[in-house]
Parts: sequence; C-alpha cells; structure tokens
Amino acid sequence: MNPPKKLLEILEKEDNFLILTHSTPDGDAFGSSIALKLFLKQLGKKAEVFTEFPIPFQYQFLPHIDLIKNLEHLSLENFNVLILVDCNNLSRVSYEKEIIDKIKKFKREIVIIDHHIEDSSSNEFESIKWIEPEQAATGMLIYFIIKALRKDITEEIATNLYTAIIVDTGNFQFDNTSANVLNVAGELAKAGAKPSYIYQRSFECWTDNRFNLFVKMLNTVEKISSLAIACITKEMFEQTNTSEPDTERFVEFLRILDSIKISALFRQIDKDYYKASLRSKGDIDVSKIAKKFGGGGHKNAAGYRIKASYEEAKKRLIDELNENCML
Amino acid sequence: MNPPKKLLEILEKEDNFLILTHSTPDGDAFGSSIALKLFLKQLGKKAEVFTEFPIPFQYQFLPHIDLIKNLEHLSLENFNVLILVDCNNLSRVSYEKEIIDKIKKFKREIVIIDHHIEDSSSNEFESIKWIEPEQAATGMLIYFIIKALRKDITEEIATNLYTAIIVDTGNFQFDNTSANVLNVAGELAKAGAKPSYIYQRSFECWTDNRFNLFVKMLNTVEKISSLAIACITKEMFEQTNTSEPDTERFVEFLRILDSIKISALFRQIDKDYYKASLRSKGDIDVSKIAKKFGGGGHKNAAGYRIKASYEEAKKRLIDELNENCML
Repeated sequence: MNPPKKLLEILEKEDNFLILTHSTPDGDAFGSSIALKLFLKQLGKKAEVFTEFPIPFQYQFLPHIDLIKNLEHLSLENFNVLILVDCNNLSRVSYEKEIIDKIKKFKREIVIIDHHIEDSSSNEFESIKWIEPEQAATGMLIYFIIKALRKDITEEIATNLYTAIIVDTGNFQFDNTSANVLNVAGELAKAGAKPSYIYQRSFECWTDNRFNLFVKMLNTVEKISSLAIACITKEMFEQTNTSEPDTERFVEFLRILDSIKISALFRQIDKDYYKASLRSKGDIDVSKIAKKFGGGGHKNAAGYRIKASYEEAKKRLIDELNENCML
Repeated sequence: MNPPKKLLEILEKEDNFLILTHSTPDGDAFGSSIALKLFLKQLGKKAEVFTEFPIPFQYQFLPHIDLIKNLEHLSLENFNVLILVDCNNLSRVSYEKEIIDKIKKFKREIVIIDHHIEDSSSNEFESIKWIEPEQAATGMLIYFIIKALRKDITEEIATNLYTAIIVDTGNFQFDNTSANVLNVAGELAKAGAKPSYIYQRSFECWTDNRFNLFVKMLNTVEKISSLAIACITKEMFEQTNTSEPDTERFVEFLRILDSIKISALFRQIDKDYYKASLRSKGDIDVSKIAKKFGGGGHKNAAGYRIKASYEEAKKRLIDELNENCML
C-alpha cells in the first residue's frame, strides 16, 4: 500500500500542521491523529491535534493524548496545512455550526487521510486526498505513511496505531480483519505495542453503571425466529445513570447466539420515539431495512429512528424483515 | 523458533502416525492435531487422529474434523509413532483408565509436541519432546514444523491452525498475544484462513440455553470492592437445560468491568458443594488463593472445589482475598 507521492511531499515540505478528526472520536480517530502528530514531530515539524472534549475514559491511556487540545479553543493562525484524519468531510468535525464555519475559513493546503467511503455531499475545497475504503482503519494508512518515509515506529506510535486498528476491527473479529491487518498489528507489537494491555484498556473498561444497564437490556431480549430483539427504555437509562454512548457494542453482543442472524436494539429517546440499531451476520443486508425506515448504514450494521410505541416499532421491523425474507 | 532436529527426522523417516491429544479437547487440541495430520498426509504418510467423542458443536466446522476417530475404538496396531499433541502426559489423554492402560502398552517411538509446562508426575517412557511453554498455542509449534520442512500451508491447515491460536489467546485478548502470534496469524490468513468466519464459528456459537444461563448468572453478580462474584445454582442449570461446559468464558466476561480486578464464579455441584473459578487482571496471583482451598491453576486463572453453602463459600473467599491484600 503506497501513499500518494503528493501527500508524502507535503508532509516532508511543510512544517506546521493542524490535525482534525470526526466528531465523537473513537479509537481510530484518536490513535491515528496522535500517531500522525508524533510522527510529524519526529520529522522535526510542529503539529497539533484538536478534538471535541471531554476525551472518553477508555482512550485516556493513549500515550500523548493529554496533549490534544479542545476544539472549542481552535485558532487557525500559524498552521500551514490542515490534515483531516479518519474523516473526509469538514462538516463532520463538529456538530457545532460555529466551529465548522471557523474551520471552513482555512484557506491553505488541506489533506484528507481516511478509510471511509467518500461523502457524496462533497467538500467545497481543493484537497489532497488519500481515501482507502478497503483498509480496516485509518491507523493502517498512518502506518504505511511512516513506512513509506522510512521512519521509526516508536512504542508510543505503535500503541496509538494498535488501538486504532483493534477498535475498528473489534479486536480482529470483524470482516475487515485481513492478513495485512494482522501483519501490521504484529509489526506494531514488535515495535512495543502491548496487545493484551491495549485490549484491556480499550475494551474491558465498562463502568458499573454500564454493566448494570447491560444486564437490564439482556433481561429484555426476545427471540423471534433468527432475530434477537432488545430494548432500553428511558427509565433504564435513568435507573442506571447512563446514556447512549454506554450502549456501544451491546447490539453486537447478541450475535453471540448461534441461532441469531440479525440483532436489533431499540433505545428510547422519548415517549413513542426510538432509535434502532440493527446488526447482521454474513450476507444479510440490514442497511436495506434501515433505509425503508429513513435510516442508513452498512450491510452488517445499520440504524434508524422511529416514532411509534415499542410494540408497534417491533411489529413493523418484523414485518419488514419478513417481507424481505430475512427471517 | 526451530523444532528439534530429531523430531523433524522422525516425521520425515517414519510413515504411520497415531496422533492423540488431551481429554476434553479444545480448539488448540483439535486444530493442532488435524493440521499435523494434514501435513503428514502431504508428506505422503499415513496418520490418524483419535479423540474423545462427541466433538463439541463449536469445532465441527474445522476442515477434516469428520475424519477424527473415536478414542474408544482405538487400536494401536499399524502405528509406528505416537504423537501427543497439546498434551505432555499420556494419563491426560482420557479419564478412562482402560483407555490409558491400552495407550501405555504402546512400545514404539513416542513424540510430544506441547506448550503446557511439563507435568511433574513425569511419564514413564522415553520420548522425543518439544515443549515450549513460552508459545501461546501448540498450533504455533505445528506452524513452525511445517515451515521448517518447507511445506505448503494449505487453506485447510491454515484454518485449523488459526482456530488453535485464537482459542488459546482468546482471539488475541490474553497476555500470550505476542508479535509472533500476530505475525503467524497473518501468515495463516494469507494462506486462506478467514479470520472473521473462524472467530464467528469458534466464539459466536452460543446455544439459546447457554445464553439464558448467562443472563441468569449476570443477575446474580455482586460487587465487593474490586471483586465481582457470581453464582450458578443446580436449579439454574436445570431450568436452562445446560451443564458445566456451557459456562465456558462466563467468569472471564466479568473482567469487562473496569473497577474489577478479580472475578469469581461459583457453580453448584450439589447441596453445599461448589466449584469455584477465579480470574484476575495483571499481577494478581489467584492461584495462591485456589491452592489455599486445595485447588490450583495459573496466575490469572485458577479454581477449586469447596464444601460449604454459597454464603459461607463467598465469605471464606472474601476473607482469604482480604488476608492476602488482594481486594
């Protein structure tokens, strides 16, 4: 995997980089951004990462995450190049219009390094793009950049990139876990990343409240043919003092059932108003179903919002799945 | 990692191999045994694997597992060499004395390929041993043997060895996940092993009954300082039509709580009689605790049996942990 020559040239030529990533950053966003910054420092450059605050608990162990700055205090002066990492559209950097408006005023070089399919509502600016939807994580691309410029992968860089990769592959569980992913992970471990430590810090970090919510959710699971369906009510969130981010990976967990091909989780937003997440195994395309309800997503992971009671929402999902011969 | 010369010579020289593994075989036992057999076939040799029946559901997808023979029908005639795989003591091949007595009559060459620490109650026979406790799985050793003899890793061999490795590393979660493990896994994926498919078949294969038991167990979880403690009663086993093997990985799941350093699961064998499993994070050595109760195990995974009521058993465990300053 070779990064575009133009991209490498800019990294070598310029010397003051602003690194931004998508809103509600995950392990790939943080790990890739920090690793790129550390690498640019190695090249003797200045580089700063700005993201939304607060930084989630499970990523606070990342080396040099404490040097990330709060996006609210962003000032564009002094930067020659803006690099968008794990994100390919400026509008995705924040939900706050003010911040987006500010970023859009950046008039110098813009570089995009990402593995998401390019956003059709395309950017209204010139940029050097390196977008590789075939790659499991943006962390892979940062690794290839460092390799292309023959620089060292330090232990700090390795830990950040290893985290980026395991978060986006579900610790080597998802379909995107290729031979290449495993080989790069092996190289990062050789460079000092500690697999079991990083796994524990990024994945085994549930709060007691989150655990309590998980148990409550499991008690609601119903099986309808090859569908497992669960619900989290507003009351359950309140009782456990949790909120939506605490439900990360809950719906995936239901796939552990051999008899299950599709899992669905409804989270109550308000009375008769739910957010639904769908997951599927193998070739079942749940994004089709999500689209029917005005949502979207990928083949094996999609979602939508629905104004209905839980019973009604459930019934409509089951009907739709039946019509598409998915149960 | 170089296999002993003597071992390679025997594999090349002899031509009729009996492959045995430990009782209640797991993914490493099955995967390593089958891969070794397929490899010997490539060399033009005869080779047979015998294990206990029935073969657990989650390993039935392994290529060529259907050619494994039932240990009960073992006959030693015609075999020139006995290879013990993922096991270093003949007595561990079966719980049935009759079978062990029969195996002990084998008077020709015996080879041991294993990654478990050698059993101190040593074997009363001469053998060629390759025991590497530093390796995460016996599957790694089989990989090195095939590489040393410069043979191809076929897709079937790769799938068996990949399974061996992920089962013994908890899909790259455990402490034994080294750079080497990831690199070998990468090579196996390049040779045709499908990471996400193999993960799903080996790990995401819970029966509905097992899932129901899991939910029941989670409802019993109590937190005492940094200890999470749970219980499965005989009644819960009966209500869900499950048995002990269905509780595999339950106690590990409790480590997902960030606040937890030790997890304990009590499974009721009979009235006032429990089997306890302990798991710990990092440097906490729970095998010390298990030994106090007449059990044993490793630093992070140990167990024991106790004749007491659940309340009493719990109290005694907490007292012991407190005395050892582990809570």
